Amino acid sequence: MEDLLTRLRAGLPAEAVLTDPDVTASYAHDMASFCHAGTPAVVVLPSTVEHVRHIMRTATASRVPVVPQGARTGLSGAANASDGCIVLSLTKMDRILEIDPVDRIAVVEPGVVNAALSRAVGEHGLYYPPDPSSWEMCTIGGNIGTASGGLCCVKYGVTAEYVLGLDVVLADGRLLSTGRRTAKGVAGYDLTRLFVGSEGTLGVVVRAVLALRPRPPRQLVLAAEFPSAAAACDAVCAVMERGHTPSLLELMDRTTVRAVNRLGRMGLPESTEALLLAAFDTPDPAADLAAVGELCTAAGATRVVPAEDAAESEMLLRARRMSLTALEAVKSATMIDDVCVPRSRLAAMLDGTAAIAAKHGLTIGVCAHAGDGNTHPVVCFDHTDPDESRRARESFDEIMALGLELGGTITGEHGVGVLKKEWLARELGPVGVELQRGIKRTFDPLGLLNPGKLF
Amino acid sequence: MEDLLTRLRAGLPAEAVLTDPDVTASYAHDMASFCHAGTPAVVVLPSTVEHVRHIMRTATASRVPVVPQGARTGLSGAANASDGCIVLSLTKMDRILEIDPVDRIAVVEPGVVNAALSRAVGEHGLYYPPDPSSWEMCTIGGNIGTASGGLCCVKYGVTAEYVLGLDVVLADGRLLSTGRRTAKGVAGYDLTRLFVGSEGTLGVVVRAVLALRPRPPRQLVLAAEFPSAAAACDAVCAVMERGHTPSLLELMDRTTVRAVNRLGRMGLPESTEALLLAAFDTPDPAADLAAVGELCTAAGATRVVPAEDAAESEMLLRARRMSLTALEAVKSATMIDDVCVPRSRLAAMLDGTAAIAAKHGLTIGVCAHAGDGNTHPVVCFDHTDPDESRRARESFDEIMALGLELGGTITGEHGVGVLKKEWLARELGPVGVELQRGIKRTFDPLGLLNPGKLF
Repeated sequence: MEDLLTRLRAGLPAEAVLTDPDVTASYAHDMASFCHAGTPAVVVLPSTVEHVRHIMRTATASRVPVVPQGARTGLSGAANASDGCIVLSLTKMDRILEIDPVDRIAVVEPGVVNAALSRAVGEHGLYYPPDPSSWEMCTIGGNIGTASGGLCCVKYGVTAEYVLGLDVVLADGRLLSTGRRTAKGVAGYDLTRLFVGSEGTLGVVVRAVLALRPRPPRQLVLAAEFPSAAAACDAVCAVMERGHTPSLLELMDRTTVRAVNRLGRMGLPESTEALLLAAFDTPDPAADLAAVGELCTAAGATRVVPAEDAAESEMLLRARRMSLTALEAVKSATMIDDVCVPRSRLAAMLDGTAAIAAKHGLTIGVCAHAGDGNTHPVVCFDHTDPDESRRARESFDEIMALGLELGGTITGEHGVGVLKKEWLARELGPVGVELQRGIKRTFDPLGLLNPGKLF
Repeated sequence: MEDLLTRLRAGLPAEAVLTDPDVTASYAHDMASFCHAGTPAVVVLPSTVEHVRHIMRTATASRVPVVPQGARTGLSGAANASDGCIVLSLTKMDRILEIDPVDRIAVVEPGVVNAALSRAVGEHGLYYPPDPSSWEMCTIGGNIGTASGGLCCVKYGVTAEYVLGLDVVLADGRLLSTGRRTAKGVAGYDLTRLFVGSEGTLGVVVRAVLALRPRPPRQLVLAAEFPSAAAACDAVCAVMERGHTPSLLELMDRTTVRAVNRLGRMGLPESTEALLLAAFDTPDPAADLAAVGELCTAAGATRVVPAEDAAESEMLLRARRMSLTALEAVKSATMIDDVCVPRSRLAAMLDGTAAIAAKHGLTIGVCAHAGDGNTHPVVCFDHTDPDESRRARESFDEIMALGLELGGTITGEHGVGVLKKEWLARELGPVGVELQRGIKRTFDPLGLLNPGKLF
């Protein structure tokens, strides 16, 4: 242990090596509930690529596992420490190195906060779409590691679609450059994409070339109240089938609406079974919203309320962004699921989730990126009640089983981490797992990078 | 050999096994010039997944290499036979299995022709964007193998962005399913993307889930004449910097314009040094074209001509699509390059290419997906003249060196195949090549799938 610290300090400034157990304990886990986290041996805070290379060389020489971390806002335990590991926090590498409006790219270090990048590119009339709920805190490196989504994905896609090239420090300290800074490129296997969503198990991203878009017009939001989740899902299908391209299409069930009202006094309509939010950032959003409003009414909406202006739109978005936090306050504990199904099966997913809740006598609130079929069922329970805790875990698993049955995936955007390891194997099947392990071995033959995550 | 044929025939219909040397020779190569092609032992034409599995099991048992093929319209020799190989043509597996307007996906077999898919989804009001010039002939499987681009990429992106999930027969005959049919999904490493652009070296794609978009309005095209390539590139940069999103932004140099006129009697303006085509498929394309026209004029355009109607737009597009074929007719032989640079370096790329042509005393016509910085310099030469042939090859290489120097890639959309193997290693560097080889070994430990391609 002392040997490890001595070696690390040989290539790092003194303040970049944290060993106080009270301090290092605060780096032990991300925001996932009920995921095991070990006790790190040390936390390091590199500020240069050379620092990271030194850390990885030291880890390899000492055979000590390394857990790369961003802001620890993840929801699957992918950033949780393992016992005796080096926690490698990239938060000090937070420089935006370049913003180029002609090439429409940004070059950033991994510790840049998502919102900081969004604002910086906004000043150039540009737009970095991926917007996870934690965007004011989470880092680009974390977004890349977990392949983050967000509210805008239904129109603009996920993080993976915005990563053009990476600099990565490998397990043994070598530096790899992948991808490109051009709009297109097909030279060899797509290693860039392989790193996106790899949860720190293949290498440490130290620099990213990101694609940007022109900033779209401000979006206008509509809220529609439905007498059932199924009716709201019918509206979602109709909107997509008719060829609309909303910039946001979100669903909050009755439990979520009430929880948000309780937390934020938002004045959302509590009598509704499902509240659908749709938005457009097109040249004429009011016309698009009117068309979508008609589809909602045809699907059974009892009330359709287009936002009058940007302030009202912003209020509705704030309510939606608050959903997970609000649901977390319903009971003493929650487990947040992240099942994505084909949008044509969304109604079956929501009805099935309600049936699971009823069977186990639990409250399960659902908010969803409905346009993408990506649901977040939040299982609320009293963690001091062992039987309720057991039923919560069971329903969490049954929700994933239902998602797979409906042709979906166990994770639309939160990742696997330690939370869903067993389920990843079920989704991938034995051939898929074998190949994924083979890739892991190719990049990290000693198994030092974020061990125990994914599989 | 007889043993191999007997084994193959045990699991295939008689008509699916071709051995007549005159017939099999016609399957020996794709459309790339000057790439070595061997003599296949046999050509097989499976029509089911089970056929493909039987072929791969047989190949593995017999240790015979397999070259997967689509329509052989590729431009890098990636589909060229190796001596004694099994050519595995997927052209008989050409069924569109599913088109779903709510989930906005199509499920297809690999032999479906790009244009056939485009038309079929069009009937549902949907759009499959990737449109390589060979779209009337090339197959979706080939598009996936080579990660094809096209004219629409500047707005809609490349093939990779439309492949959600794959069924793949591995080298040993096992079946792997990757990805998803949902809009989002982050379960494990992105194996789907790894197969896209892998040129048949990792497995045989037998089924693909493709993302579709709503069909956009018909695009309107503008043509602008420039006194120099650099001025046209300035216009391209201005268009992108101002936040426009053209559905097409193409450049044809003087040589290309003349070649197209000669081939197609298109009446393009021969006095211009560079012809820029811009198009919009927005709600008000005329307004967008007017704005872009002003930017062209400001950049030095001598003439800006918006198409009056769809027919005139279609004529201009036809001229552009004809470019490579027209340039191929300039001399007895051509080598087609495919360098992509950051669009801010496009002018440097075009001026540098002209300098290379002058230095070697050669005609090099350039057409380019200018909005993406993706140039196709076509080196025209007399292949019966050894010295001119040598200079052609040298200039072809110098163009790639220039592209790398300008921060670009040796291939924007045509792939590596056998044509650019040495250059791939230069672009990736030793660490990248080592990891790519490691991935190849994980999927194909015996090295039977399309050996000698990529690296």
